[in-house]
Amino acid sequence: MDKVSLLDIRVKNLNQIKTRGGDIFKVMTRNDTSFKKYGESYFSWIKYKSIKGWKIHKKMTLNLVVPVGKVKFVFCKLNSYNNFREIVIGENKQFYKRITVPPNICFAFKGISKNKSLILNIADTVHSKKEETKIPLKSVPYKW
Amino acid sequence: MDKVSLLDIRVKNLNQIKTRGGDIFKVMTRNDTSFKKYGESYFSWIKYKSIKGWKIHKKMTLNLVVPVGKVKFVFCKLNSYNNFREIVIGENKQFYKRITVPPNICFAFKGISKNKSLILNIADTVHSKKEETKIPLKSVPYKW
Repeated sequence: MDKVSLLDIRVKNLNQIKTRGGDIFKVMTRNDTSFKKYGESYFSWIKYKSIKGWKIHKKMTLNLVVPVGKVKFVFCKLNSYNNFREIVIGENKQFYKRITVPPNICFAFKGISKNKSLILNIADTVHSKKEETKIPLKSVPYKW
Repeated sequence: MDKVSLLDIRVKNLNQIKTRGGDIFKVMTRNDTSFKKYGESYFSWIKYKSIKGWKIHKKMTLNLVVPVGKVKFVFCKLNSYNNFREIVIGENKQFYKRITVPPNICFAFKGISKNKSLILNIADTVHSKKEETKIPLKSVPYKW
């Protein structure tokens, strides 16, 4: 039986370093406790007020960072829709964080800054359709 | 003696996948031939017309992707300033590519889109000041 809990989702403040010509935003080093191994990385754009989800990965651990805009992530356990965890991350210093999502957590996200937002996922496995389950947005009773 | 050549810099077209709500931009999987190992990833913003460089990493291989804006990278060998390689990458489909830069290549870059541009570097080592050499911009006779 799957014992993962919403409290297993980790949130880590990340450094932004002021630099002439443009700032440096840290993401993740191999020495971070959240780092397991490298599988794949990709960007997802999300438009203002658009929602993507729900999805569950059976094997993939996600590491999510938002360098542009602001995104609201919502997490729950499958078929356990009385308990949601909401985490907002984005480019502004106080929101610049990395979310580490273990496998078997159901999640969806919404763009909440007026221009589109950019999400980087550094995953520990390579994406495959077999290990991903999609759940229609309206099947989960969360009020966006 | 260091035998690395400017031709050892690899450029790879990357996929952009149209998706309702916002597109997916691929970056790198562990199965790509350019991937060696994961060390560290970070973002660098670069303002329009700003230039950052020059730098040489003794050990780090860089994997560079630009999901926002457009950036001109210039590469050369240290103290061999009659030969420069210029590569422009950016968010537009025809410029959306990954540059893999082996160690001991000298490089600098300039923001060339009117808003600031965003560079993601996925490096195979963790950054340390010991393995990085900085060369003042004006020491290299490249005409920007």
